[in-house]
Amino acid sequence: MDIGFIGLGKMGQGMAANLVSAGNTVTVYNRSAAKADALARQGATPARTVAEACGGDVVITMLADDAAVEDVVFGDQGVLASLAPDATHVSSSTISVELSKRLTAAHTAAGQQYVAAPVFGRPEAAAAAKLFVIAAGAPPALEMLAPVFDTIGQRTFVVSEQQPAANLVKLSGNFLIASVIESLGEAVALVGKAGVDPLHYIDIITSTLFGAPAYATYGGLIARGEFEPAGFTATLGLKDIRLTLAAAEELAVPMPVASLLRDRFLALLADGGAHLDWSAIATLARRDAGVGSDHPA
Amino acid sequence: MDIGFIGLGKMGQGMAANLVSAGNTVTVYNRSAAKADALARQGATPARTVAEACGGDVVITMLADDAAVEDVVFGDQGVLASLAPDATHVSSSTISVELSKRLTAAHTAAGQQYVAAPVFGRPEAAAAAKLFVIAAGAPPALEMLAPVFDTIGQRTFVVSEQQPAANLVKLSGNFLIASVIESLGEAVALVGKAGVDPLHYIDIITSTLFGAPAYATYGGLIARGEFEPAGFTATLGLKDIRLTLAAAEELAVPMPVASLLRDRFLALLADGGAHLDWSAIATLARRDAGVGSDHPA
Amino acid sequence: MDIGFIGLGKMGQGMAANLVSAGNTVTVYNRSAAKADALARQGATPARTVAEACGGDVVITMLADDAAVEDVVFGDQGVLASLAPDATHVSSSTISVELSKRLTAAHTAAGQQYVAAPVFGRPEAAAAAKLFVIAAGAPPALEMLAPVFDTIGQRTFVVSEQQPAANLVKLSGNFLIASVIESLGEAVALVGKAGVDPLHYIDIITSTLFGAPAYATYGGLIARGEFEPAGFTATLGLKDIRLTLAAAEELAVPMPVASLLRDRFLALLADGGAHLDWSAIATLARRDAGVGSDHPA
Amino acid sequence: MDIGFIGLGKMGQGMAANLVSAGNTVTVYNRSAAKADALARQGATPARTVAEACGGDVVITMLADDAAVEDVVFGDQGVLASLAPDATHVSSSTISVELSKRLTAAHTAAGQQYVAAPVFGRPEAAAAAKLFVIAAGAPPALEMLAPVFDTIGQRTFVVSEQQPAANLVKLSGNFLIASVIESLGEAVALVGKAGVDPLHYIDIITSTLFGAPAYATYGGLIARGEFEPAGFTATLGLKDIRLTLAAAEELAVPMPVASLLRDRFLALLADGGAHLDWSAIATLARRDAGVGSDHPA
Repeated sequence: MDIGFIGLGKMGQGMAANLVSAGNTVTVYNRSAAKADALARQGATPARTVAEACGGDVVITMLADDAAVEDVVFGDQGVLASLAPDATHVSSSTISVELSKRLTAAHTAAGQQYVAAPVFGRPEAAAAAKLFVIAAGAPPALEMLAPVFDTIGQRTFVVSEQQPAANLVKLSGNFLIASVIESLGEAVALVGKAGVDPLHYIDIITSTLFGAPAYATYGGLIARGEFEPAGFTATLGLKDIRLTLAAAEELAVPMPVASLLRDRFLALLADGGAHLDWSAIATLARRDAGVGSDHPA
Repeated sequence: MDIGFIGLGKMGQGMAANLVSAGNTVTVYNRSAAKADALARQGATPARTVAEACGGDVVITMLADDAAVEDVVFGDQGVLASLAPDATHVSSSTISVELSKRLTAAHTAAGQQYVAAPVFGRPEAAAAAKLFVIAAGAPPALEMLAPVFDTIGQRTFVVSEQQPAANLVKLSGNFLIASVIESLGEAVALVGKAGVDPLHYIDIITSTLFGAPAYATYGGLIARGEFEPAGFTATLGLKDIRLTLAAAEELAVPMPVASLLRDRFLALLADGGAHLDWSAIATLARRDAGVGSDHPA
Repeated sequence: MDIGFIGLGKMGQGMAANLVSAGNTVTVYNRSAAKADALARQGATPARTVAEACGGDVVITMLADDAAVEDVVFGDQGVLASLAPDATHVSSSTISVELSKRLTAAHTAAGQQYVAAPVFGRPEAAAAAKLFVIAAGAPPALEMLAPVFDTIGQRTFVVSEQQPAANLVKLSGNFLIASVIESLGEAVALVGKAGVDPLHYIDIITSTLFGAPAYATYGGLIARGEFEPAGFTATLGLKDIRLTLAAAEELAVPMPVASLLRDRFLALLADGGAHLDWSAIATLARRDAGVGSDHPA
Repeated sequence: MDIGFIGLGKMGQGMAANLVSAGNTVTVYNRSAAKADALARQGATPARTVAEACGGDVVITMLADDAAVEDVVFGDQGVLASLAPDATHVSSSTISVELSKRLTAAHTAAGQQYVAAPVFGRPEAAAAAKLFVIAAGAPPALEMLAPVFDTIGQRTFVVSEQQPAANLVKLSGNFLIASVIESLGEAVALVGKAGVDPLHYIDIITSTLFGAPAYATYGGLIARGEFEPAGFTATLGLKDIRLTLAAAEELAVPMPVASLLRDRFLALLADGGAHLDWSAIATLARRDAGVGSDHPA
């Protein structure tokens, strides 16, 4: 398949490389061209503009936030202006439900296809083609894309024909992870203050009740107080909780744990922790318990 | 080994039966004698009084709450009065840190051994000898009890030499489960109001981010709105959160998620839901979102 | 003074009428012209366009929300385009800190003066010239406006030379009122469920600890369950809490009570209460306590 | 009237002195006798034991907490054992609803009268006979006590015939004050971080929306960061919120603001602030906003 790929960050690099390996014709674009050149050495064609990456059947965008997607899609000679009628824009970025609605309307008006396909997984999973793809869109478009999703991920879940539903499920997943971080933070503050070793505690919890990787990964970071370098920064964590709350407000759904998480991220940012891993919000429960902060402020 | 076993509820039955099967001499006591008679048919010796169950090397108590343990231990001809010097009381009930401290002091004053050994696992795990034992106490006592714990559980974690630490870890585990229930409740309210099918959503979440059994078990109950019969009632859930908060207050550890959970359990009780499974607190997020309650009030 | 007045809602009517009575030349504009005609009968000059109301030294805007102010100020032939250099725009609407920053920048770039002057007080206070004016801007502009503020209010507080500070203080005031409503709601749910008559309770509280009008006004509405007609709707209440939280997020200030209030307003809206007085959030504590809702959903 | 008075702390001193001045025969008892001697110089009769203070028609207790009241009432030769049949115990301490229930039952069983009469007001109000008395009990007893209450307070509110209702109203009042402190703390953190002077801000708020003394008193302490010496310590504040939450749990009334306040007090205690004025919880919002703490930890 002839595929454009826009956005070669930690996640996008691995995804694009896997598409190349699978034999697709992949044209890659990145704002800073060096990353596109690196992919070119693996067999991709570097594009110098967004428009050049929009000449095929499908263009995938994998960008940092709403603003980046808006620039690339709605800008002069952006995706919307460049994509052929009937060609498909696959948005894999973690964006707002609101922006996904606007993309749906704009591509429909332009006679183009739009599929929302955010993913669960960290950069290592992207490199290993082990992502989970959360997809929503018109059934024929999803059917056409099935081999693409199989190339980048281990499994695809079709949520709905309504594209924004996939973005909402993705945001809710990050909310669930953040709520695990907060709860672990409180639990570690509690047992730690009582003299139980945090590492031992996390070992018990993950060996018994909670074997899920999120508990092991974040439990370990919390118990060791290792928040640098960040796998996913507090700034991005706040962004996703903000988008979750915005979607919830639009639907009139109160989410008290999400409200608490927002307050935690703000407190972490106020304390100078914007660059830390988002799991550093767990230090706030310890600080409130008077047992000191794990991170250098 | 010569073992007394007091408390033959859903959990105790399976534990005592496994001790019998493993070849121990087991004397069983239950307030309503019918359950002891049932165990007798499997080879246990029924005791007519608490004191009769305290004649061996070890007596294990597995009771509903602090009040029941206080009655059995501190009552006339209770465990404390009946146990031989150097014999060991193993408390497997989910009790308060405060009561565990009192038990430590009382048994020590009486020249007896006291081991705290609460367990993680539901009744089916107790029957199948698949419990996780969270133990704390003097190392020689724990060493002596190792085969007992291996008989009732799949793995033993020694938390500390201080008995109350095991009770705190147990309580914190129930807190973590309840916080998962709350977060899932909020997430399901959010995506459900947006039109995503809750069962499909839980399938996605448990197939991707959260494979841990707690997510599958409680996610399923929440998505199906099945809160009767209760595996663990809201009344017991509130009790455990109350004990968690009491321990946290004693240590001056603020736990905002635990505070929220307490409020949720109170709202569920106020709505007539005391007898429902504790996961029914997840319905409150849906009610607050105006999408109706899953349970008959 | 030659004054334009844009926005003749419940608040603006009284303010404009007082400016007329004090002998100013007042040109009034309202989207629906009937209200301007009513003021004309009191001596004001009705304007048919926004631009016609911008011919004097000062134009005051008193509108419902950010969107209305943006339309009137930034629209074609709006305030920005119509106001003479050196003339002054006084914004009395309850708007976001963000919009106040944009107004500051835009008017400065156009060589115009901009003063933020939101007010505390309900429509009756506006009619009686008993408002409190919370003002911020350049000292000479504030000095020039002193007689205007004295005409519409009983006292003026100068917060800062930075205009957005006045908007923030106004928002914080509405946050404080909403937090009183929530706390009273919880207290009434508590004592009411114990059998204390809510009206008697509010009488005690306002006769002893809290004589401030907000307690008497909202306490009475809560105790009587009178939420229609709304003096200030739940929709507007949510708006102000949203703006407070937005300003707090920009400054990285966690505000847990504000987060709770947001959740309460969302729950009220989800229950069909958007049109009720904002004090109806107090019914949610009663509902959570299982003592029924005071309002018809 | 022949009145015993037990408990001569900051509040009790003023109340007892006013009873003496009004011409009553007052027998005073305090654990440390020096304070009773001081009252004796004003005309009271010092008692050496609790029993000696229980020989009249009425005995009033004004003690620090539940434990002190339990000692004095239920102890050997305590109030219960010493008071004549038909004599009346007036409990003015801020105690739990639970203890008030026990006092009701115990005095009734002993054929004695029991009236709950907690008060609103600080020590200066007690000295000036400006307290508000919140009374509950049997109507004849309240009628008999009317002149007593008029002597110590400026106004009496009869809440109910059920004594514990008065204690609940008293606790709810302290909850309302604490919620004001928290909300002011958040508001000051917000506007302060935006550059508004906290003292000026409190002046605006108390001159406009909230003239009630609680706002001026606590707003001033918060704005000046003056938390020593404490008028009412954080330890006592936590106690009252704990009693409020206990009463609310008994009634199944969720109170999210009270839950937040509990977490705030715990964080303050964990930070070494037990001895500070309870309004020091307002510093936590500032700390969470990264603008530093006002108090020496």
